[in-house]
Amino acid sequence: MKKIEGGITTPKGFIAGGTCCGIKDGVLDLGILVSQEEASAAGTFTTNLVKAAPVLVSSQQISRGKSLAIVVNSGNANACTGERGMEDAWQMVRETAATLRINPQEVLVCSTGIIGEYLPIDKVKQGIHELGPQLSPQGNRAFAQAILTTDKNAKEVALEVATSQGTFRVGGAAKGAGMVHPHMATMLAFITTDLEIDPSILQGCLREAVDLSFNRISVDGDTSTNDTVLILANGRSALKGEGKTLQAFQEALREVCKTLALMMVRDGEGATKAVKMVVKGASSPKDGEKAARRLANSLLVKTALYGEDPNWGRLMAALGSSGCLVDPSQVKIWIGDVQLVQGGVGVPNVEEKAHKVMRQREYDITLDLGLGSHEYWVWTCDLSYDYIRINAEYRS
Amino acid sequence: MKKIEGGITTPKGFIAGGTCCGIKDGVLDLGILVSQEEASAAGTFTTNLVKAAPVLVSSQQISRGKSLAIVVNSGNANACTGERGMEDAWQMVRETAATLRINPQEVLVCSTGIIGEYLPIDKVKQGIHELGPQLSPQGNRAFAQAILTTDKNAKEVALEVATSQGTFRVGGAAKGAGMVHPHMATMLAFITTDLEIDPSILQGCLREAVDLSFNRISVDGDTSTNDTVLILANGRSALKGEGKTLQAFQEALREVCKTLALMMVRDGEGATKAVKMVVKGASSPKDGEKAARRLANSLLVKTALYGEDPNWGRLMAALGSSGCLVDPSQVKIWIGDVQLVQGGVGVPNVEEKAHKVMRQREYDITLDLGLGSHEYWVWTCDLSYDYIRINAEYRS
Repeated sequence: MKKIEGGITTPKGFIAGGTCCGIKDGVLDLGILVSQEEASAAGTFTTNLVKAAPVLVSSQQISRGKSLAIVVNSGNANACTGERGMEDAWQMVRETAATLRINPQEVLVCSTGIIGEYLPIDKVKQGIHELGPQLSPQGNRAFAQAILTTDKNAKEVALEVATSQGTFRVGGAAKGAGMVHPHMATMLAFITTDLEIDPSILQGCLREAVDLSFNRISVDGDTSTNDTVLILANGRSALKGEGKTLQAFQEALREVCKTLALMMVRDGEGATKAVKMVVKGASSPKDGEKAARRLANSLLVKTALYGEDPNWGRLMAALGSSGCLVDPSQVKIWIGDVQLVQGGVGVPNVEEKAHKVMRQREYDITLDLGLGSHEYWVWTCDLSYDYIRINAEYRS
Repeated sequence: MKKIEGGITTPKGFIAGGTCCGIKDGVLDLGILVSQEEASAAGTFTTNLVKAAPVLVSSQQISRGKSLAIVVNSGNANACTGERGMEDAWQMVRETAATLRINPQEVLVCSTGIIGEYLPIDKVKQGIHELGPQLSPQGNRAFAQAILTTDKNAKEVALEVATSQGTFRVGGAAKGAGMVHPHMATMLAFITTDLEIDPSILQGCLREAVDLSFNRISVDGDTSTNDTVLILANGRSALKGEGKTLQAFQEALREVCKTLALMMVRDGEGATKAVKMVVKGASSPKDGEKAARRLANSLLVKTALYGEDPNWGRLMAALGSSGCLVDPSQVKIWIGDVQLVQGGVGVPNVEEKAHKVMRQREYDITLDLGLGSHEYWVWTCDLSYDYIRINAEYRS
């Protein structure tokens, strides 16, 4: 498995592109990804009960397990838009199908951006119509740019996996974590592979990889109305996803998802640090998860990360209020490899060393609860002035 | 029931005072409150599993239901300090008892401030020794100042309640909400009354009042290791807390707790707004609470409050991810009396009016889920640059 230049069009038989259809001003805001062969399709969608129209449409479309195209716009989430929003999402599907001369059943749709405003659907349709003929194997970058909102950087990754049976590829593109700019919504990821794989197996692989990546990152603890991860597998490598090849694919898929998820944490709104919060020695898997998520979401912890302050009291306080079973006298805490806490009390004279670790852009914080054998981790970022600026100063 | 000048020494038979014992530099950091008659005592303590030493000591002491004195220091939380911290808390109890010539069983103790450092116990004992003889009915203000950490203002309230049987008084003092300055911990409140009341009834009244006040405020969603509310009732008014007098007391106690809690929200770290988040029409009481708390704690909601941005999409997104049952098409939202959302979609042309409401320092946001008859509310504040400054820039 090796990382190579590229993105969603690196696997064989995929074309893509991006254009500015006019939702945003002079910036790419519409992308299309097409598989040149009918692909197995799988997806995971937001658990938010307030689901955007495209989430409702795509989760219905994907139940067939087969797709040919994905159309995505940024700048408008088409969320909280009622019946008209549903009709707009279906119009995006139908226009894409007409332009590409495929069956509307074969089209998935995503949106990200302002909540509660209607799409300028005529502009979007015109954009789809114009973009369709321009899609190409070189269009991955334009697609990756067209799906961004407050992200600073486009997020792409491509892997090539050589097996004894032959070689296949996995590519991905994603946009921001953090419920972002006012009204802006969230996390989208698109993954492609030229492996041949059954849709239900693909769904299982995706769910597992998402749980170990996108579900393990925290920017502000908010869950959007639009979160979506989609994968298309078109079989163009002539390799089948079974036995050892399937294992190799699972590994590559995990790596692609993890890479994109980490890009999101690093690009979190106003973030200056990416920190892996590891909870070990929990008395149950659920407890470990509760503790890690609480630590990753605590404002006091996140501001201490920003302040580069080895403030383990805040870690103890967040741990104790996480709902996880804790015996303070058993707790050990490390920042990087510097132990700060032993038996629930501070280790003397280590603040300076710990502060040095915290000046890095990326490091681990490890809490050992000493109660059992269960472990969980979450990637988090710090909370800075820029988060407030990005999220408060915009006036709609 | 009328509000009068004063605080914890307004009810008859209470004396108090504050001094600088040297934990902090030249600022009041030690307070003592004494009832001149053995008082019924009740308390509620943090639910954090990491409990500070004074929390462990006071919750043991208060099980007797009777107390005479409370000693409190600020600047050091005596939390995560192991055996030595327990011994220090007991030393504060014993020194206070010796100075006041009372039984150590009659003394409660609280601390707030830095987590994970040992108390300078000799200074604290010296301070107790010196403060004891200086306590007076005029000492309420010094006590209220001595318990502060990052609070901008001292928080005091006093009520006089006239009944057909006679008059009694309820007083209170409190310190900050918000897990405050680095290593600083949290919310303390002390309430006094000269009503005579049975300890178990007093505990019931306190629990109910705390649930409707201190448990309904959110500054940053963090729960400290030291949160404590204590009440002493010494009977000096010669009025008994039963029948209608008990009802009047409950009402007055609710009012005192609510007033102190609101002072905390208004004085939240970096806060510029106090907003009552009301969820109506929930399908169960638990659901209403989940939704209100999620809304009150969402960073995206809190930054929108700071930005005075009528960003109802964030309210919908927070609602949908609260774990509360939501049917988006039934949701209505008001900011003040301006309706922003009807049937889950935006009402046109009301942003300017809503923005006007949001420029006020205090207002309500109401969400009607349209699913049932249950209601819950929480007071919250906005999230500003100053929160980050206060919590990140301090270097320990």
